Amino acid sequence: MREFDLIKKISEGVPRSGEGLVCGMGDDAAVIEGPGETCWLVTTDIFAEGVHFERGWSDWETLGEKALLVNISDIAAMGGIPWFYFVSVGIPGDINSRDVESFFGGMRAVADVNDMILAGGDTTASKSGFFVSITVVGNALKDNIIYRSGARAGDKIYVSGSLGGSAAGLACLKEGLRGGEYSGFIDRHLLPESRLSLAAFLAKGGYASAMIDISDGLVADLGHIADLSGVGYKVCADKVPSAGGINDVAGKLGVAPLDLIVAGGEDYELLFTVSPDKEKCFLDNALRIDCGCGVALIGEIVNAKEGRKVLDVNGKEVAPANSGFVHEIGG
Amino acid sequence: MREFDLIKKISEGVPRSGEGLVCGMGDDAAVIEGPGETCWLVTTDIFAEGVHFERGWSDWETLGEKALLVNISDIAAMGGIPWFYFVSVGIPGDINSRDVESFFGGMRAVADVNDMILAGGDTTASKSGFFVSITVVGNALKDNIIYRSGARAGDKIYVSGSLGGSAAGLACLKEGLRGGEYSGFIDRHLLPESRLSLAAFLAKGGYASAMIDISDGLVADLGHIADLSGVGYKVCADKVPSAGGINDVAGKLGVAPLDLIVAGGEDYELLFTVSPDKEKCFLDNALRIDCGCGVALIGEIVNAKEGRKVLDVNGKEVAPANSGFVHEIGG
Repeated sequence: MREFDLIKKISEGVPRSGEGLVCGMGDDAAVIEGPGETCWLVTTDIFAEGVHFERGWSDWETLGEKALLVNISDIAAMGGIPWFYFVSVGIPGDINSRDVESFFGGMRAVADVNDMILAGGDTTASKSGFFVSITVVGNALKDNIIYRSGARAGDKIYVSGSLGGSAAGLACLKEGLRGGEYSGFIDRHLLPESRLSLAAFLAKGGYASAMIDISDGLVADLGHIADLSGVGYKVCADKVPSAGGINDVAGKLGVAPLDLIVAGGEDYELLFTVSPDKEKCFLDNALRIDCGCGVALIGEIVNAKEGRKVLDVNGKEVAPANSGFVHEIGG
Repeated sequence: MREFDLIKKISEGVPRSGEGLVCGMGDDAAVIEGPGETCWLVTTDIFAEGVHFERGWSDWETLGEKALLVNISDIAAMGGIPWFYFVSVGIPGDINSRDVESFFGGMRAVADVNDMILAGGDTTASKSGFFVSITVVGNALKDNIIYRSGARAGDKIYVSGSLGGSAAGLACLKEGLRGGEYSGFIDRHLLPESRLSLAAFLAKGGYASAMIDISDGLVADLGHIADLSGVGYKVCADKVPSAGGINDVAGKLGVAPLDLIVAGGEDYELLFTVSPDKEKCFLDNALRIDCGCGVALIGEIVNAKEGRKVLDVNGKEVAPANSGFVHEIGG
């Protein structure tokens, strides 16, 4: 079965809001009422050996850093700030205590930089691989939270940083390509960058009408915004910022660069839409303030009936070989 | 390494409270500030194949029910009411979609009875066994929350329901004993009872000075209260209510009944202390109100220097063969 089919089935009839619950399933994080004008954002992600990583690809500290960073990315995608984290970990018998402590040390390093507190968790033996399920609780002013559902026809589509590097790095790891020209891509896969500064800028200014972080790939994640906003989109493929040198590495990997850029996953960049009345102010301030990364205009939200299109420089529709990670689970 | 050693290491230097965090690591749930006079209680538990259950011991729906109930028990242990749940699940290739849906159906059945909403989660393939990490968010009035740390010398120790049945049932399952006289114990292991009514009664009346749910076993969990409250205890073994017929089944299993009763785990009963000035009112009302289970006076909190003792009818100290589950994790 496919992950999205399962999620669809188990979420059938589940209320999307309720007393104390501003927003339930379906966005990057659940939104729960907090003290005063604030809300708590709650997100949870699994990071499992043999699925999300292989032992030997990096040291345990880096694994811990990434495990926490991908959860932080979900909080950023709502315009929030991460405050607390909970770690449930399954530890197989062939991992020694020093490695487990390194893993927690990596998380702790990321937590310390972001002023986050470890607030709970669970530990268990694992009869198989190492796995961790992290829950991060973030905070945001209720009025500043950015949902996937707010995009409207005419809004411009922006993306932070560059895309494709992580997918290229993952492919290098799988193909056994290391060092030299590959190391930048591999590093990008093993340790995503935090986009919390950009998220805070967007949330505070009220600039973004919708936002998501790119974990499944640009096309798949823009699809989530389109689904929840009830809109279509037009993206210009050549305007999507790609990781430097991606054409060369794609050639060596024998894949089309476009597949890495618009359909590769785990970029953990922010994908957001800006309404016409906010765009000038957004651009003026974005140039003025250092958010630690660039942002690029890559397309426009259109009416749902105009469809979902990725176009080349001539305005001709191009289709990536896949539209993002398809997660196969179970039998 | 042992679970408690790891937890001790990774929690070194972690603040136990902070802005928005009333109580962090160390209790049954973290306590986060909520709207108005309320707090959110956050707890997370893993339920993994080969560690917490074996396939074939029960149907998938019952597994789902238990997985959620053990998390609800942590909310009850703080005097709270469960509101939302998040489910992260790892699904191996040899489990079909119908079984996964049954598992979620079991959780849904428990959630519906308790008016809980599924608010998020994650799904992944698993290269090994089935595992689930559930996070439950509960609610409580800030002043009504019952911590592990509030027990004082002179407080009486109470326990709900009866103990030992779940450990007996687990032993039956492991020994291949089924049906007849064993089925009641096995059922007790596979599906714990909810003590939310009793928890609500205790919280509302402010009767309990400290509380925990019994997951590791009476002696181990009373030890957690003693640790956090800085006290000792005296428990009369013969006053601890045991599951009916436990002497017979213990004989067939070749274990001492006492080991099942005071050191068996997964009873998910509530263990709480009541201060002398609250006891009369507590007993008067406990008899008047139906909380769905009995409560029994089993001992008294003493000063730390008087130690931690389980006594027989003659006041002689008895020692169980083990003092609760010792969770071995990693290598």
